[in-house]
Amino acid sequence: MSLNQLGIVKRTIVRADAAAVGRLSRLGVATIHEAMGRVGLMKPYMRPVYPGAYVCGTAVTVLLHPGDNWMLHVVVEQLREGDVIVAACSADSDDGFFGELLATSFRARGGLGLVIDGGVRDVKELTAMKFPVFSRAINAKGTVKSTLGSVNIPVVCAGALVTPGDVIVADDDGVVVVPAAVAAQAAEASEAREANEVEKRTKLAAGELGLDMYKMREALEKAGLKYVD
Amino acid sequence: MSLNQLGIVKRTIVRADAAAVGRLSRLGVATIHEAMGRVGLMKPYMRPVYPGAYVCGTAVTVLLHPGDNWMLHVVVEQLREGDVIVAACSADSDDGFFGELLATSFRARGGLGLVIDGGVRDVKELTAMKFPVFSRAINAKGTVKSTLGSVNIPVVCAGALVTPGDVIVADDDGVVVVPAAVAAQAAEASEAREANEVEKRTKLAAGELGLDMYKMREALEKAGLKYVD
Amino acid sequence: MSLNQLGIVKRTIVRADAAAVGRLSRLGVATIHEAMGRVGLMKPYMRPVYPGAYVCGTAVTVLLHPGDNWMLHVVVEQLREGDVIVAACSADSDDGFFGELLATSFRARGGLGLVIDGGVRDVKELTAMKFPVFSRAINAKGTVKSTLGSVNIPVVCAGALVTPGDVIVADDDGVVVVPAAVAAQAAEASEAREANEVEKRTKLAAGELGLDMYKMREALEKAGLKYVD
Amino acid sequence: MSLNQLGIVKRTIVRADAAAVGRLSRLGVATIHEAMGRVGLMKPYMRPVYPGAYVCGTAVTVLLHPGDNWMLHVVVEQLREGDVIVAACSADSDDGFFGELLATSFRARGGLGLVIDGGVRDVKELTAMKFPVFSRAINAKGTVKSTLGSVNIPVVCAGALVTPGDVIVADDDGVVVVPAAVAAQAAEASEAREANEVEKRTKLAAGELGLDMYKMREALEKAGLKYVD
Amino acid sequence: MSLNQLGIVKRTIVRADAAAVGRLSRLGVATIHEAMGRVGLMKPYMRPVYPGAYVCGTAVTVLLHPGDNWMLHVVVEQLREGDVIVAACSADSDDGFFGELLATSFRARGGLGLVIDGGVRDVKELTAMKFPVFSRAINAKGTVKSTLGSVNIPVVCAGALVTPGDVIVADDDGVVVVPAAVAAQAAEASEAREANEVEKRTKLAAGELGLDMYKMREALEKAGLKYVD
Amino acid sequence: MSLNQLGIVKRTIVRADAAAVGRLSRLGVATIHEAMGRVGLMKPYMRPVYPGAYVCGTAVTVLLHPGDNWMLHVVVEQLREGDVIVAACSADSDDGFFGELLATSFRARGGLGLVIDGGVRDVKELTAMKFPVFSRAINAKGTVKSTLGSVNIPVVCAGALVTPGDVIVADDDGVVVVPAAVAAQAAEASEAREANEVEKRTKLAAGELGLDMYKMREALEKAGLKYVD
Repeated sequence: MSLNQLGIVKRTIVRADAAAVGRLSRLGVATIHEAMGRVGLMKPYMRPVYPGAYVCGTAVTVLLHPGDNWMLHVVVEQLREGDVIVAACSADSDDGFFGELLATSFRARGGLGLVIDGGVRDVKELTAMKFPVFSRAINAKGTVKSTLGSVNIPVVCAGALVTPGDVIVADDDGVVVVPAAVAAQAAEASEAREANEVEKRTKLAAGELGLDMYKMREALEKAGLKYVD
Repeated sequence: MSLNQLGIVKRTIVRADAAAVGRLSRLGVATIHEAMGRVGLMKPYMRPVYPGAYVCGTAVTVLLHPGDNWMLHVVVEQLREGDVIVAACSADSDDGFFGELLATSFRARGGLGLVIDGGVRDVKELTAMKFPVFSRAINAKGTVKSTLGSVNIPVVCAGALVTPGDVIVADDDGVVVVPAAVAAQAAEASEAREANEVEKRTKLAAGELGLDMYKMREALEKAGLKYVD
Repeated sequence: MSLNQLGIVKRTIVRADAAAVGRLSRLGVATIHEAMGRVGLMKPYMRPVYPGAYVCGTAVTVLLHPGDNWMLHVVVEQLREGDVIVAACSADSDDGFFGELLATSFRARGGLGLVIDGGVRDVKELTAMKFPVFSRAINAKGTVKSTLGSVNIPVVCAGALVTPGDVIVADDDGVVVVPAAVAAQAAEASEAREANEVEKRTKLAAGELGLDMYKMREALEKAGLKYVD
Repeated sequence: MSLNQLGIVKRTIVRADAAAVGRLSRLGVATIHEAMGRVGLMKPYMRPVYPGAYVCGTAVTVLLHPGDNWMLHVVVEQLREGDVIVAACSADSDDGFFGELLATSFRARGGLGLVIDGGVRDVKELTAMKFPVFSRAINAKGTVKSTLGSVNIPVVCAGALVTPGDVIVADDDGVVVVPAAVAAQAAEASEAREANEVEKRTKLAAGELGLDMYKMREALEKAGLKYVD
Repeated sequence: MSLNQLGIVKRTIVRADAAAVGRLSRLGVATIHEAMGRVGLMKPYMRPVYPGAYVCGTAVTVLLHPGDNWMLHVVVEQLREGDVIVAACSADSDDGFFGELLATSFRARGGLGLVIDGGVRDVKELTAMKFPVFSRAINAKGTVKSTLGSVNIPVVCAGALVTPGDVIVADDDGVVVVPAAVAAQAAEASEAREANEVEKRTKLAAGELGLDMYKMREALEKAGLKYVD
Repeated sequence: MSLNQLGIVKRTIVRADAAAVGRLSRLGVATIHEAMGRVGLMKPYMRPVYPGAYVCGTAVTVLLHPGDNWMLHVVVEQLREGDVIVAACSADSDDGFFGELLATSFRARGGLGLVIDGGVRDVKELTAMKFPVFSRAINAKGTVKSTLGSVNIPVVCAGALVTPGDVIVADDDGVVVVPAAVAAQAAEASEAREANEVEKRTKLAAGELGLDMYKMREALEKAGLKYVD
């Protein structure tokens, strides 16, 4: 292991199984996060650039420096059909690292969307293109191209560890990372969870109480809950 | 008075007069807040989950703990037609305490909407259901069900004191609390204020200056305002 | 120069050249900001009240105090057709300084929009009116009218210096200030930049890499970038 | 009950029992907060102006408006020996409402310290005077004296409800509010808690594990904790 | 006027009158800010690196970019005895732009201290050296040296406009900017204000009320203040 | 690899080489961070509980949930002489997870200090004990003991990935993580960097310019820097 992990582009990564990605792409972030035991979620400051944005694909990672988007140009060449770019930054930065031209380039090379712990711009154009972007900020401020970062190393993005090839799912509720090795398990657990919710929804809509449906009354009483008038 | 106010569900509360609630439901938050002398407003970080969300009803309160939504299941049983659930938390938390299943349950039991000093999830579904939610965050992060809070005790929610039965009005501008005892007075003062605005709007649209309409010139001069070229 | 710059209304200001304003009004904030050498941008916390809001015009400035909107009534009289009101505050404040009545008055007097380092209210009405407002907060909280500020003095608004008569351009990406003296230069540089992007967009959409188009490979290699498998 | 609660100075308040205040003054905020069932704590953004600041006394409350400290002059007259001034604000404000001259006046009239959901200044002088102040900000920014608030009405300060006469205890860990009616109970429960900690401390210092001391092993195993190598 | 203000080092600046600087150096930030009519203050997030830090001198300005401290090396050559370095940044950044080595260099060249809208490091060493630094953050994160900014252009630092040569005064309460042209006036007004406070302090310490000393009772009554029991 | 990583205590971890830890313990965080190529730093919101706090040791990690410190009792049993506890949380939380009793227990079992992405309390006692704690908040708010986390799994703490056994160094400037595998390399690079600074310091103190010492003039000129009068 070398001391310095910067200035590296890893060309070969192992992407999560395509079938598992396909199954996860029919599910929501909250469901997957629950099914995984409530881990892998990015911080809630990550928000979609337009309402209804959704993306599910395999992570190609990039580590940026504040105010410098050079590596976003480097990462494009490493994209394959179905990838989601995950951009971390070596320090908190709201600069506008990304806009319409890069989105055009990402899409032309198979990129499905972007998750970036930084700012983006060209909101109007990104919305018109329906290119899903999840970011910490919106900012017209541009960046320079002068310092090396890395591509396809493990990164911490918005508080979550992302290893290249992991599955990224993002919707209006946030962004979740599914490690490639458990993608099929996560899909299965999520599908089970979702199937289970259909019945619950029907009962609750009919006025049944969660107190009864989940059999909580005994536990609440044991914990000391008191009803008073 | 007992030292410990946790672990209590109060079943009987005095709701604000229904006629007053009805009158307030035709008014906006800014107008009501002004008419009340500029008190009772929650902090501006409370935002609607979708644009145009609106709710007006009587408060049923619940005190939660960070990362624990157990009491949201308890509160459902205490709802009556026309209630708004007001959820406070014993410490700042952006966790996702609430989602589509609970919204389904709240609505089935008469709940009109939710005001929560915490996070929520299932934004897409809540928007489709048109279930109005006002929250401090959107977050896929789930919660546990293990610690007792209380239902229908006075709570401080987003900086405002809410007593069960108070009227809650929430729109795109924020959330205001109208104490039950002054609901009719507040409705009357708000209606008067709104009626008064019609005439002002016409004059201002015609180009009349507020300086003249509100007779401010003398006061400004007395305060020392100087016009220079 | 006098010690105290408060309590002054300057009636005569030199507005940027109308032709330059017209040219800038066909351009986006990110483009103009880039063309100016990446200066003049307000902080990214300034957001439009509704998606798609856009304004371009000449700045009429006003300095407010926290919780006091008296000077917004004073500034109306100084508006000319094509002006944008830029409101700074002597300390950070999220109070709701501005709403629908003032918007009606501003528009009747030629005001095109508002940029305010403070809060605003009546979001629903402003959206219906299509009156573009860019602010740091949305807040139903009202203000008093008791302390003098100034009109048409240079102000620092959301981190940017604004001199009366400067061009203000604001869209979904943020707010940029173009000094009146360089408005034509900025328009020219922005137009050139935009023209240049058309060709780039076509190439990128066809799959050409920025690495090649911008000839970055040599510089990256020189900086020490290493490709590994 | 009147609609408008502003512009009122209540001269007569019921202060907590002096003996209870005396007992609480020998205890720390964390201990009291725990003993009360974990309620009554202000938000953690409230910090002492100098390390080691400590105050315990009966609350005299004041409601201010952003940028306006008029009512801090009004409240002085209502102080009695042993009071702590609790200042809330009708909206978030970091303005410097308070400094050395007011501290001199508060102390001359029996005031022991200040808890303010706003900013203060003259940090050097307050430190030299050893006048304990707990605030949300430090700020040289001055305020005006033009809008009425109220004195000795219930206020929400930094997220906690404070009724005039309640006991306020503040130290390096934060600020806790003890309702006057339960002051003796809270003192007793706190003393018991503290006594109990002496023995625990000795055992833990000798290397005994909390796992054993608190008999947690069984509960952990039941919850599913697994030890692996 | 040129479009691009970056990449410029202005060698000749007009520093404020030395006698005025000397007079201001015996005064506190809050006093000066008040005497100037409550303008010129930086945002309250600017804090001293160690308690009791104080500096008063003439501003030499520098505009940095996020994550890049190249220009701090350029500015050293422009220092004269008695200067204070004021560093602004083209976008919010908490990176550690400055540490002990630069402090050593600044001091060797006559620099009295640093005011920076960014982060600094080597807190222990700066404290030992008693080199006064006021910053928005403390951060070990280092910076690169690759992008041009400018030296001795007007900058907006922490919300305040600073023109090279202005007087900068900073203490535990914050940082205030006194324009060079009004330095003597500001000193005089501040001294008068301070002299006036001696008498007030004595009266207040003796228990006289501000209500009487400032003759506020009539104004309060007129505003509608009501005393109740 | 299992889907659920919660509820696990790993007893066997590989700690960084003791000699390397010893060498790192004579160095500062900024130096180490620089020597490692500017990676591994936690977010700057992590601050020492008292000025001058310092710790260097091997990481024993723990993953907590908001408002729940159960696992801090579990982790004690896994400590060895020279360990630093690193506590991450599954969501942002400022609750007071840790205080004097746990510090006593940690120390009795060989723990040197605590780094926690959460709040702590008993600041006065921790300071008196000289037990170094680095945290995101200070908060009297207590926690429950009801939900399983894990011990000695890799965690993301304040934005940095920490693997059990890594070296943690923390001082007034922040917290840096040195992967166990590169601890000796990092120590060597840091020592070289520090040795190099002695000579620089002497030259700078004598008035030599960094511009000359680092030979920056040519690069600045090439980048286009212009000196004007």
